[in-house]
Amino acid sequence: MNDPFFHPVSGFELPRFAGVPTFMRLPLVQPGHDRFGDVDVGLIGVPWDSGTTNRPGPRHGPRQMRDASTMIRAQHLLSGVRPFEAMNCADLGDVGPNPADIRDSMDRITAFYRQVVGAGIRPLTAGGDHLTTLPVLRAVAADGPLGLIHFDSHTDLYHSYFNGQMYTHGTPFRRAVEEGLLDPRRMVQIGIRGTQYDGEDLDFAKAEGIRVITIDEFHARGPEDVMTEAREIVGAAPTYVSYDIDFVDPAFAPGTGTPEVGGPNSYQALQVVRGLKGVQIVGADVVEVSPPFDQSGATAYLAVSIMFEMLCVMA
Amino acid sequence: MNDPFFHPVSGFELPRFAGVPTFMRLPLVQPGHDRFGDVDVGLIGVPWDSGTTNRPGPRHGPRQMRDASTMIRAQHLLSGVRPFEAMNCADLGDVGPNPADIRDSMDRITAFYRQVVGAGIRPLTAGGDHLTTLPVLRAVAADGPLGLIHFDSHTDLYHSYFNGQMYTHGTPFRRAVEEGLLDPRRMVQIGIRGTQYDGEDLDFAKAEGIRVITIDEFHARGPEDVMTEAREIVGAAPTYVSYDIDFVDPAFAPGTGTPEVGGPNSYQALQVVRGLKGVQIVGADVVEVSPPFDQSGATAYLAVSIMFEMLCVMA
Amino acid sequence: MNDPFFHPVSGFELPRFAGVPTFMRLPLVQPGHDRFGDVDVGLIGVPWDSGTTNRPGPRHGPRQMRDASTMIRAQHLLSGVRPFEAMNCADLGDVGPNPADIRDSMDRITAFYRQVVGAGIRPLTAGGDHLTTLPVLRAVAADGPLGLIHFDSHTDLYHSYFNGQMYTHGTPFRRAVEEGLLDPRRMVQIGIRGTQYDGEDLDFAKAEGIRVITIDEFHARGPEDVMTEAREIVGAAPTYVSYDIDFVDPAFAPGTGTPEVGGPNSYQALQVVRGLKGVQIVGADVVEVSPPFDQSGATAYLAVSIMFEMLCVMA
Amino acid sequence: MNDPFFHPVSGFELPRFAGVPTFMRLPLVQPGHDRFGDVDVGLIGVPWDSGTTNRPGPRHGPRQMRDASTMIRAQHLLSGVRPFEAMNCADLGDVGPNPADIRDSMDRITAFYRQVVGAGIRPLTAGGDHLTTLPVLRAVAADGPLGLIHFDSHTDLYHSYFNGQMYTHGTPFRRAVEEGLLDPRRMVQIGIRGTQYDGEDLDFAKAEGIRVITIDEFHARGPEDVMTEAREIVGAAPTYVSYDIDFVDPAFAPGTGTPEVGGPNSYQALQVVRGLKGVQIVGADVVEVSPPFDQSGATAYLAVSIMFEMLCVMA
Amino acid sequence: MNDPFFHPVSGFELPRFAGVPTFMRLPLVQPGHDRFGDVDVGLIGVPWDSGTTNRPGPRHGPRQMRDASTMIRAQHLLSGVRPFEAMNCADLGDVGPNPADIRDSMDRITAFYRQVVGAGIRPLTAGGDHLTTLPVLRAVAADGPLGLIHFDSHTDLYHSYFNGQMYTHGTPFRRAVEEGLLDPRRMVQIGIRGTQYDGEDLDFAKAEGIRVITIDEFHARGPEDVMTEAREIVGAAPTYVSYDIDFVDPAFAPGTGTPEVGGPNSYQALQVVRGLKGVQIVGADVVEVSPPFDQSGATAYLAVSIMFEMLCVMA
Amino acid sequence: MNDPFFHPVSGFELPRFAGVPTFMRLPLVQPGHDRFGDVDVGLIGVPWDSGTTNRPGPRHGPRQMRDASTMIRAQHLLSGVRPFEAMNCADLGDVGPNPADIRDSMDRITAFYRQVVGAGIRPLTAGGDHLTTLPVLRAVAADGPLGLIHFDSHTDLYHSYFNGQMYTHGTPFRRAVEEGLLDPRRMVQIGIRGTQYDGEDLDFAKAEGIRVITIDEFHARGPEDVMTEAREIVGAAPTYVSYDIDFVDPAFAPGTGTPEVGGPNSYQALQVVRGLKGVQIVGADVVEVSPPFDQSGATAYLAVSIMFEMLCVMA
Ligand SMILES: [Mn+2]
Ligand SMILES: [Mn+2]
Ligand SMILES: [Mn+2]
Ligand SMILES: [Mn+2]
Ligand SMILES: [Mn+2]
Ligand SMILES: [Mn+2]
Ligand SMILES: [Mn+2]
Ligand SMILES: [Mn+2]
Ligand SMILES: [Mn+2]
Ligand SMILES: [Mn+2]
Ligand SMILES: [Mn+2]
Ligand SMILES: [Mn+2]
Repeated sequence: MNDPFFHPVSGFELPRFAGVPTFMRLPLVQPGHDRFGDVDVGLIGVPWDSGTTNRPGPRHGPRQMRDASTMIRAQHLLSGVRPFEAMNCADLGDVGPNPADIRDSMDRITAFYRQVVGAGIRPLTAGGDHLTTLPVLRAVAADGPLGLIHFDSHTDLYHSYFNGQMYTHGTPFRRAVEEGLLDPRRMVQIGIRGTQYDGEDLDFAKAEGIRVITIDEFHARGPEDVMTEAREIVGAAPTYVSYDIDFVDPAFAPGTGTPEVGGPNSYQALQVVRGLKGVQIVGADVVEVSPPFDQSGATAYLAVSIMFEMLCVMA
Repeated sequence: MNDPFFHPVSGFELPRFAGVPTFMRLPLVQPGHDRFGDVDVGLIGVPWDSGTTNRPGPRHGPRQMRDASTMIRAQHLLSGVRPFEAMNCADLGDVGPNPADIRDSMDRITAFYRQVVGAGIRPLTAGGDHLTTLPVLRAVAADGPLGLIHFDSHTDLYHSYFNGQMYTHGTPFRRAVEEGLLDPRRMVQIGIRGTQYDGEDLDFAKAEGIRVITIDEFHARGPEDVMTEAREIVGAAPTYVSYDIDFVDPAFAPGTGTPEVGGPNSYQALQVVRGLKGVQIVGADVVEVSPPFDQSGATAYLAVSIMFEMLCVMA
Repeated sequence: MNDPFFHPVSGFELPRFAGVPTFMRLPLVQPGHDRFGDVDVGLIGVPWDSGTTNRPGPRHGPRQMRDASTMIRAQHLLSGVRPFEAMNCADLGDVGPNPADIRDSMDRITAFYRQVVGAGIRPLTAGGDHLTTLPVLRAVAADGPLGLIHFDSHTDLYHSYFNGQMYTHGTPFRRAVEEGLLDPRRMVQIGIRGTQYDGEDLDFAKAEGIRVITIDEFHARGPEDVMTEAREIVGAAPTYVSYDIDFVDPAFAPGTGTPEVGGPNSYQALQVVRGLKGVQIVGADVVEVSPPFDQSGATAYLAVSIMFEMLCVMA
Repeated sequence: MNDPFFHPVSGFELPRFAGVPTFMRLPLVQPGHDRFGDVDVGLIGVPWDSGTTNRPGPRHGPRQMRDASTMIRAQHLLSGVRPFEAMNCADLGDVGPNPADIRDSMDRITAFYRQVVGAGIRPLTAGGDHLTTLPVLRAVAADGPLGLIHFDSHTDLYHSYFNGQMYTHGTPFRRAVEEGLLDPRRMVQIGIRGTQYDGEDLDFAKAEGIRVITIDEFHARGPEDVMTEAREIVGAAPTYVSYDIDFVDPAFAPGTGTPEVGGPNSYQALQVVRGLKGVQIVGADVVEVSPPFDQSGATAYLAVSIMFEMLCVMA
Repeated sequence: MNDPFFHPVSGFELPRFAGVPTFMRLPLVQPGHDRFGDVDVGLIGVPWDSGTTNRPGPRHGPRQMRDASTMIRAQHLLSGVRPFEAMNCADLGDVGPNPADIRDSMDRITAFYRQVVGAGIRPLTAGGDHLTTLPVLRAVAADGPLGLIHFDSHTDLYHSYFNGQMYTHGTPFRRAVEEGLLDPRRMVQIGIRGTQYDGEDLDFAKAEGIRVITIDEFHARGPEDVMTEAREIVGAAPTYVSYDIDFVDPAFAPGTGTPEVGGPNSYQALQVVRGLKGVQIVGADVVEVSPPFDQSGATAYLAVSIMFEMLCVMA
Repeated sequence: MNDPFFHPVSGFELPRFAGVPTFMRLPLVQPGHDRFGDVDVGLIGVPWDSGTTNRPGPRHGPRQMRDASTMIRAQHLLSGVRPFEAMNCADLGDVGPNPADIRDSMDRITAFYRQVVGAGIRPLTAGGDHLTTLPVLRAVAADGPLGLIHFDSHTDLYHSYFNGQMYTHGTPFRRAVEEGLLDPRRMVQIGIRGTQYDGEDLDFAKAEGIRVITIDEFHARGPEDVMTEAREIVGAAPTYVSYDIDFVDPAFAPGTGTPEVGGPNSYQALQVVRGLKGVQIVGADVVEVSPPFDQSGATAYLAVSIMFEMLCVMA
């Protein structure tokens, strides 16, 4: 641990606007690199949005997030955690999707993550739309169903869209439950809000025992209380964390395809991640950052701030 | 009720980015249409900003709000209300103003709304600047003064502007009281803030018995307590609801001509509408959405989210 | 002809910012409407971008183009042509795609256009990415291969992309030639420029006898001379016109996914359309307008100005 | 002449981004100032857009143009003219309009310009929409009808709009001819293009002997030839120059309310002003700069570059 | 006091979009002006960003803040304070920096402020990056170390940057303590958050007795409680107030170079200023407003709203 | 040559929006890398803008240019040149400047380029403001004065700025001549335009024999004729090419700090580079790309298109 090879470039040495932007200014260690086997946590981009049903753009997310991440420094103000010294972190590059073929893309993603997981690396993913999580889980949940803490405006539990499409960003968690990748009784979805087509997703959640915490309950109880419950739901077993940036109110995260007003502010957006302390996180993602709808880059910056908080609780 | 003709097009059938955009993807039923008489609630655009004293733009509001409204679905998450099944809702089109003549425009608006009210339709208006509310009230308050619940940063109670101009977006409620369209003792204004020219408007409010709840009182008491009082003020009699989007903090609603910092967030922006449940709403509006100052479209989306909440409490 | 039902709403009657935006403010006459059979030229939106290999967005094109088209008036300044009096024009609405299935979408598009063509209506399409043209041609070229005048930075003649994908916006004209929808000896591509992967597309063009006019030749000869040759190539037989907005220099048309610098200016962009006078146009399109990359709306406005010029030469 | 009081602040002394922005960094000499009588050319803002029939915003033009004008230096590259040494130039401030009353505003403008003209100052105006020119001409043409060189996409010669509105930005030159402020046989309009409602304006031009040079003629002949004819038309008698920024192609001047594609580029935009050399200019304006539609500020910068060229030919 | 010369121009007389923009529409009274000696509070721009280590732009801050300040009116809603009647306020213009020489710029700033302080004027500064505060303090703290209430995401207490650079916007308060301009035991820093290079700044704070209130403590205790402590720390002796706009969450203040998510909202941004009532303020500033990153102008408007609140507590 | 290690990643294999962005998707080969000695042409970023006298931002240029360069493919359409096969090209990374010290930064840049030149690599630089060229020339012109072909709106030949500042982006070529790095009789400056402070720069050019081709001469003669003369001026001896993006009209290249209207279009912007064929280029740069003023990214894309043309004439 605390291997200088894995330290990010400091803004005191090289100004933060300089240099080829990798995640958090970490070394780029793609599969095949001779230090690949030494990585503890791998930051991975999945530039893909073929599951998007409305406004596209998350395919451009990883690049913008890398750019914004050059503003992230080395140490957490409150806890004093220095994640890049506590763990060997690296940018593992992007998984190249096939923009014209959803299933081929999913296979590519799963194959890449199998390499990652096989090397003992915990993946921290920058999406990509939320369908990304499904092929990631197919690799990460190889040893049995995981718990899930899921931040989102939407349950993403629908059965299908349009002409019976089973794979969109509105269906990944339905598929993951069906495929035995997630244990529904160890699943919690936080921040659900917005108008609905109907109650089909909530009916499924209820039937399966998935805990849904609406934004109204969230605002009434506060982030700390909610996260205490979330930790209890997933317990001590391996758990995946999936963070749809549309969980956050669009004033703080405008760059996303399906915004819903009335969400948490940016402080709460960080607080819920701090509330993951103690969870056995085997993988995490931040998805649905859509640069074409994020003119100022604020959404990408919030997303990488969330990724830094994730690293601190994974350390 | 629950007439399929009046159901919005579902995003499961036609993607939300497709189709000619009407309000909420409802049928366009303009006066003369053979289903006009079957409409319960009519969504109407008033593309007009001749009353604007500073930054113009609300004339472009209805079109952008129609576009944003294609993101609204059919059902309220919490209450389960499906307003488009509970009431026959339709897009009644726009009232065409005369951009070069304020009085002619007001007459055109009043004439249109008389048709609407005469057909037993409750109007839900997308402005337009706040002067819009005056000619609307001239039609809606035909049977005597109404109560008013008014969300705004400003009282809009000034006597006149510039060279004695009586009709601007800073004066509609002064005129409406003078014309007997509103009952001042059944009026409440919520969210008042910002710098002031002087206290002339507040003096008028005090003299007439209009209840003014400043943003400081709002933040101190919270939306629910404030709305309880508001419901008491208007009581069980017919009431109009007027929602100036500048009520909301400009971080959440930047697209408006006279923003004032320090306002409610987007969750509170919805909460106050939910607090209207039980009020006898004879008409409502959302005004001052100014697309030229709303580069991301976020303001229009918040505005139509508010309109959906209004429909749910009117159902 | 000159049926008032098919006249656009004048900006002298209803301000141009008012009203639900249809193409050119024409009546909305979707299949099933009782005037559908009287339409001569149908303006159709295809909100679809599943063939896009880089930056997405054309799915939002038709709506923004309808909005911009409300700025178009009734008469051509120079020629005095009044197309909406010379032909019955109408907005036929959008073809709803399936964003998650390319082949299903193509089938839906072809089916819609078969209805249109079957009713004797000439289609003028607002895309959508350039793959749109392929399923349109499958309907329009039902009676044998057509000539093609194609304005673009790119030949769109590649064999396939990525993992052997045959249907992307880089391949439609290769497919159309293979499927016998276009007669390669009656095809001309104008404005080709930008960096290339390799010469595979140009080799195909050469082998098939497709005439490629690079931007260098275009700038050297000028629009009028080039269009004289184009008219000779297609001759008097039925011809389709396909206009990729990236033909125009990105300073004039920034809102597109694959811009190439060094293109024609906006005057030349119109001149080439005027040069179509005399061609037997059986259908036409303007594609690749991508609103997320068109912050000012200028691209959509140029695109509908081009559509108006097309109407004038089709009249 | 060459009075240091009237020299602009140099960017070598005070950086161009510093200081309260007056036009060209000139002294602010409003009526009443003790140097008012020494001014030769007065730069005046008219922040007004009540004549606008479509997209508003020129009321914000003068302020943005002052800001952009701080980028203008002291000397013309080619001619070597130093206008601020050749003439006493000053910023005379803004005329305050009445946003809610067109006729009151016109009276205020005319009154202000009478003061200016009365003091022997030639006005160079930054609008405001094009209706601005009418009340200015009422002051400037006090001694009889003037010649006019008018750059625009539109003739602005319509009789009326909407419900018989006589005063809009589409009618000022019709009114000015009717009021005897302009001599139609000494009028030339350059750059006319775009779609038309009908030919009513061109019929009026023809009947009165106003010379209309369409953009097609402009592009065919070139700026120099066109300006030679323009100079001949106005001759040696007093002439007013009115420059609607929508004369320029919207790629170069996006910030305007009624753009028309296919116009001159920015070099031609300057060339035509250089072609005014020798004309007896008694006043000039640049109008229709609309900051809400000019996100980058490019339009304002082009507009003040045009104003600088005007000063050089007035020197 | 209450001298009409020092009253701002009312928006009832001259629309707020009209006129050359000075701070708050106050008279421009630069050194040498014959009313300079009568000024109580001077609003000063320092258009300078040479201390910026990442994203530049605050050199453009004062001009944009002047523009936004034309939206500020005359009276505080709650307290009824009319600061421009209570004190003689004026715009003192900008201090011209030398963009290519940090030390020369600091000397120019200090010299200007010595004139101001020497005339008995309290300065209210619009920056400029945060290094601005150092040369200002060199003038304002001439009679001994001051107390400091400092709102910021960052402590700005670092020793040096890059190659030993002592003067950047990350070091001004370290320097000010070292130079004896501030009394560390009367210093409080509020809102500190974001990732850190290391703990060097906090170590210095601890060693010197500077009170640091992190954003977590701020959110837990609330603005009023925090400000009560702040007032106790500075006590009754002369105090300077420095407000880095990045104190506020970037959703409310995006236009700044080093944003940190998770900050106060705009209401809290004002509340903390109201909490200064009773403090003996000898000078204040609002810094780090960066227009190139503030497309909508919202940040500048928030900044001048804060300046107005400052004037009310200084009155 | 034609070493696959130095081939860019193809968009047919990895979509162009994927992957960590290096220049042209080339390998990153920083000094110390074991293939450094095999590089023929090195693409280098200099993220620096300390020489900027007005609007800052070029420090962010290299990163945005790398991002845009992922849209560049492998082959020139007309000439068929495949530069990445003809020469070993690589991204050499960024030179880290010291944002707070101009002279230190210049020394760092010169030192880096001495490594590059010492390894036999020809540098192609992405700036940075135009002062960048001076420290580059100090390394590249080690063996005696070079010829210069300089595209720009400005001569950058001023003696000094502000308080005698010798090193700004307005002075680099004055310094380079004085330092003997350039041979003034083999220097040509093309595109000069805009307003001027005075004629001091042109006087220097004249005295030294530097050829200045104004934009008026450029437009009159055309790019090809001008470039023929330029090639004659520099002859067969080693020559440096410096391309200030403000050479191009701001409609095509808005993202720059000192735009001047009336410039070349984007086709001419490429033509002049093609006209360099045959010149013995020992180094080249494209400077003054300022992302904060380039909202759409169009300027960066044009800049890298120019860099690709440069590579083709260097091949
Ligand atoms: Mn999701
Ligand atoms: Mn979601
Ligand atoms: Mn209001
Ligand atoms: Mn209001
Ligand atoms: Mn194409
Ligand atoms: Mn193309
Ligand atoms: Mn005009
Ligand atoms: Mn015009
Ligand atoms: Mn600070
Ligand atoms: Mn800070
Ligand atoms: Mn230069
Ligand atoms: Mn330059």
